[in-house]
Order: sequence, then C-alpha cells, then structure tokens
Amino acid sequence: MRATILTSPGSIELQTVPDPQLTTDSDAVVRVVASCICGSDLWPYRGLDGDQSEPRRIGHEFVGVVEQVGRAVGSVQPGDFVIAPFLYSDNTCALCERGVHTSCVNGGGYEGCQCELVRVPQADGTLVRVPGGEPDEALVPHLLTLSDVFPTGHHAAVSAGVRSGSTVAVVGDGAVGLSAILAAKRLGASTVVAMSRHAERQEIARVFGADAIVETRGKEGAAEVREITGGIGADAVLECVGTGDSLKQAFMSTRPGGMVGYVGLPHDAAFDPRGNFYRNIGLAGGVAPVRRYLDELLPDVLDSVIEPGRVFDLMLDLDEVADGYRAMDERQATKVLLTP
Amino acid sequence: MRATILTSPGSIELQTVPDPQLTTDSDAVVRVVASCICGSDLWPYRGLDGDQSEPRRIGHEFVGVVEQVGRAVGSVQPGDFVIAPFLYSDNTCALCERGVHTSCVNGGGYEGCQCELVRVPQADGTLVRVPGGEPDEALVPHLLTLSDVFPTGHHAAVSAGVRSGSTVAVVGDGAVGLSAILAAKRLGASTVVAMSRHAERQEIARVFGADAIVETRGKEGAAEVREITGGIGADAVLECVGTGDSLKQAFMSTRPGGMVGYVGLPHDAAFDPRGNFYRNIGLAGGVAPVRRYLDELLPDVLDSVIEPGRVFDLMLDLDEVADGYRAMDERQATKVLLTP
Repeated sequence: MRATILTSPGSIELQTVPDPQLTTDSDAVVRVVASCICGSDLWPYRGLDGDQSEPRRIGHEFVGVVEQVGRAVGSVQPGDFVIAPFLYSDNTCALCERGVHTSCVNGGGYEGCQCELVRVPQADGTLVRVPGGEPDEALVPHLLTLSDVFPTGHHAAVSAGVRSGSTVAVVGDGAVGLSAILAAKRLGASTVVAMSRHAERQEIARVFGADAIVETRGKEGAAEVREITGGIGADAVLECVGTGDSLKQAFMSTRPGGMVGYVGLPHDAAFDPRGNFYRNIGLAGGVAPVRRYLDELLPDVLDSVIEPGRVFDLMLDLDEVADGYRAMDERQATKVLLTP
Repeated sequence: MRATILTSPGSIELQTVPDPQLTTDSDAVVRVVASCICGSDLWPYRGLDGDQSEPRRIGHEFVGVVEQVGRAVGSVQPGDFVIAPFLYSDNTCALCERGVHTSCVNGGGYEGCQCELVRVPQADGTLVRVPGGEPDEALVPHLLTLSDVFPTGHHAAVSAGVRSGSTVAVVGDGAVGLSAILAAKRLGASTVVAMSRHAERQEIARVFGADAIVETRGKEGAAEVREITGGIGADAVLECVGTGDSLKQAFMSTRPGGMVGYVGLPHDAAFDPRGNFYRNIGLAGGVAPVRRYLDELLPDVLDSVIEPGRVFDLMLDLDEVADGYRAMDERQATKVLLTP
C-alpha cells in the first residue's frame, strides 16, 4: 500500500510499504476513507520532536471501512464504516472506566494512518461504528473530525468546566481552537470570545458561534476579554496552542476562580503557579480521551446539529500529501483532508 | 489594647497600640475571644516574605464578640459571637457571587488579629453570626478553625473534586493537611491516604478519618499511594505545603485524569505542565474563599459532626504569643491557639 513517510524533517514522501496484517485476535484492519494532517504532525515535520534520524510513518486521524477483524472482535465487522480515535484503548480498564482512555493500560498509537490501510489493535474498545454503512460523502469530513480535532476542542471545554451560561475565551484559532469554539457553544456557553487575527479563521469562528473576536494579545487582549465578560474575565479559557505565551495569555484572560482547559501540547510552557494561586485559577486538560466522548458527539454530527468538518479548507489526494504539509506549515491551510 | 507585632524576623512582641475605631458605616469592631497562629505567619517570622524592614501587626484568624457596628451594618449586632473569615469581603460583588470571596472587589485583610480588638470592614458581608450567643468554651477551638484552617483544607478537597467514593491522598501533615483529611472524609471520600512522618500528627490524621498512612516520599511514596488506590493513584491529591517538592509529590501521586487541589502558597514551585498534560492531571485551588463555605460547614461544627479544633495542640495566653511562634517554628506545636 501507499503510506506517508517523514524521511527527515521537512521531507514528506509517499512510499510503498507492506499491507498491515492482523497480528492478534483483537485487531482489525481498516481501509482508510479519509485521513488528515494534525497541527501536532508539524512538530516532527519542523524537526522539533527530539531525535529524528530515522524515517517514520506519520498520521493518527482517520475514518474508514473495516476490512478484516480478528476472531475476538465482536463490535465491528467487515464493511462497517468506523471512526478511529487517534489512540487505541481497550475501553474496559480502570482508567478507561474513569474516562481517561489516553492512559489505557492496553492502549497506544497506530503505526501511521496517512495511508491506505491501518491495523487497529483493541478494535472492540477503539472503533466506533457509524450506523447505516458508508455515509454520504458530504458527511465524511465531519465524521473525520471525530477522530481527534473536534473531541480535542470539546475536551478543552469539558476540562474548563464549560456549561450553560459560561463565558468563554479561546486562545488559538487553528483547527483545534475553532473546534473549541463550536464545542463551547454546543455545551451552552453564553459568550464565546475568539482570539484571532486571521480574517478567514475569524469567519469560521463566527460560523461556529463566536460572539466576539479579539485581535489584540498580551495584557491588551486580556483587557478586551475582561471588558466583554462583565469586567472580570472569562469563566473558562480554552488554551489550544501550547506555548508559554499562549498559556500566559489564557491565565491572564481568566476571571478569579475560573478555569483554563488546555489541549495544546506544552512546549516551553513552564510557569510559576503563585499568581494563579492568589486568583484561584485552575488548569486542567491534556491529551483528549476521544473515545470517551464519541457516544455523545456522534449523534450530533449524524443529525447535522454541528458541522465540525468546516475546519477543513484544503482537500487533497493522498498522492499530494507533501503539498498538504507545506500548506499547513506555511499557514496557507488550517486543516488538510487526505483521500487515498 | 495589646497587639502582636513582628518587630523584625524572629522577633515577636506584644505591644500596646490604640484601640481600633469604626471608620466607615459598614465596619464592625470585634473583641477577640480566640485567635491563632497560621503556618503562613511563619514565612515573615522566618524573614522569607520580601522587604521586612518595618515592624508590622500580624495574625488573620479569629472568633469573637461584636462590640460596635457602623450604622449600615444589619446582619450582626453588639453581643453576637462571630466567625471572621481571614479576609473580609462584601459577599455581593460579581466575584463573591461566583464564590471567589478572596478576590472581592471591596475585600482585603485585617490589620492583625493576634490582639484584643479588630476592626472588620464590610462587616455584613464578612462576619458569620453563631446562633445562641457566646458558645460553650469547648466549642471555641472548633469554631476558630472556621476562620481559616478548616475551610482551607475543605477548599483543597473541593478544588480537587472530592466526592462520595473518591480516593484521596493528602501531601502535608500540618494543620491544613490534617484539616484536608477531615474535609475529604466529610465529603465522602472512600479512601484517604495521609502522607506523614510524625507519630503525633499521624494520630490526629487517624482520628480525622485517614485510612492509611504513607511515610515515604518521592517515587517510593507515590508508589505506595498507587498500591493503596487500586494500582492507579489517587483520584484527588490535596497539596497542603506549597513547595516545588510537595507539588511534584502531589502530581506523582495522582492517577491519570485526576486532580490536585492546592492550598499551600507556592514557594519556588514553578513546573513544566508537559508531564501532567500526557496524564491529564489538573491543578486547581488557591487562597481559600472561606466565607463561601461557612454556611455549609458551621452547622456540622455546631452539631459536633466534625471536631476540626483537634488540630490545636498548644493553648496559650496572648501574653505568651512569642512562645507560640517559637513552638510552631521549631515544629513543637502543630497549631497554637491564643486567648487574649
């Protein structure tokens, strides 16, 4: 099959590799219908991910059709259209039971999924069947977001305690930040402030329900957020970038007693909690336990209550994957969908 | 009146100062029945609190009897026995409404309360009347803990989301840590692990409901906590010290997806959130908004459901206040009660 290889930083190649095989009774093999490029794929693409001397497969978000299942697999069968959370998990261990599927004792990551076929371990615990067989083509991008980016935005909102009536600010206008806006509105936020400087992303933010846009940053940006939120700051701030600056921006924009939900993998983001201590500002979040949220989110996508796939602004054939990385690296695209 | 003055680090003197007066219509003057020494008073006592070139009044926890009230005060009157949260607040502003009385827009601290009389601004919003007039002497220590130490332990538990069935570990066996144990059990924790090396404090921990004691620290201590909590770590860890080491101990002892509630003012506690991110471990808490909790906690003290005053192991006359500081500084006492 064809598979995307990061041969060295900045160099993406589509190569022919052996088809994956079932290796245990609980595996499935899934034919990829659509995959995409994640902001986090850009870290190794940019050479910022530790030792990168070896070529590696890449990609972790996909939807597809089950091709084969191991003998122990009962919840999906060949022909099922499935969503694959970006990490696999057994959905039964003590940590899955507590909703932290990302820390599943039998969990892990795929070998890569910007390709044609993926072996999915723990298929019963991982794959979520979409009822009704292969869906309408127009629905595929929305379903694809359920493998990572939309539940990640949702996780930021849940971690920050967003509920009916909450005031919310979102730091970061990438695909995750935009998803967080949609998730916050879905959870009933009364006011969502998008912090964004890009006209096109502001437009999606508005479509997703943002009530206000703040273009300034730093103290000025935090002051604008305060002004919009009754003079006190947002109840919940969703940090969707992962740098020291963005985390600081989030803390500054939160009201005393409020909460920051963070889903951007922290890079150089060490901080002294003393300032937050005086203001009772909390921090929660992390790698999104996607599987936990799918039973709640999938129906809203199937019923077109939400259209999270609007974050995709570039659709490419898998053959063009290198162009996709370039476009995201150069910020010409927010999120790239790949069709094998 | 007599009042405690920290004349310079390590030097506590009882001096005569002018009696406080009503300065606004919303003030009250309260005659102190009992006050106490807080762990946080030891920071300036030890010279670790910035510029300390000037002598200063000290103390912030007390209960007493109202002597005088300003014309606008309606909720308390002379003769009432009251609990004074360690910060005053109006109990009506947008932040008080959201339960963050410590960030009240009209709030602040007292001039000191290890003395005989205290002026309490925002008396209506701050003071909580104990029904039935001056209480039985045996009840006074328990009521006194409601001004700071017990609600602070409670705030750690609330911030960490402790509820019925939670597994909890408490880092720190000072008066706040012990209070946190009692608070966690009161909220329904199924298992509370006290991390303590002091036999006498372990005994209070047991009385307060601790189910297990862990004497080791670092990785070994975290491993012991994991072993007690089904192999995964505690749902909630209550950090009641405030150093970098204690915060690290708390993070290590928390299960993936769990929460650290912290109430020890952080000193040299900067940290990189990346490790917590992968494990979805959150951090919340801060300066305890005592006033928020008193309506809930006071009835349990009056009904002797809880006896938080057992943290006091040294009762002194106000004249002996310098001995009290010495005893706490040298860890000969856990918490000192002072009677004017």
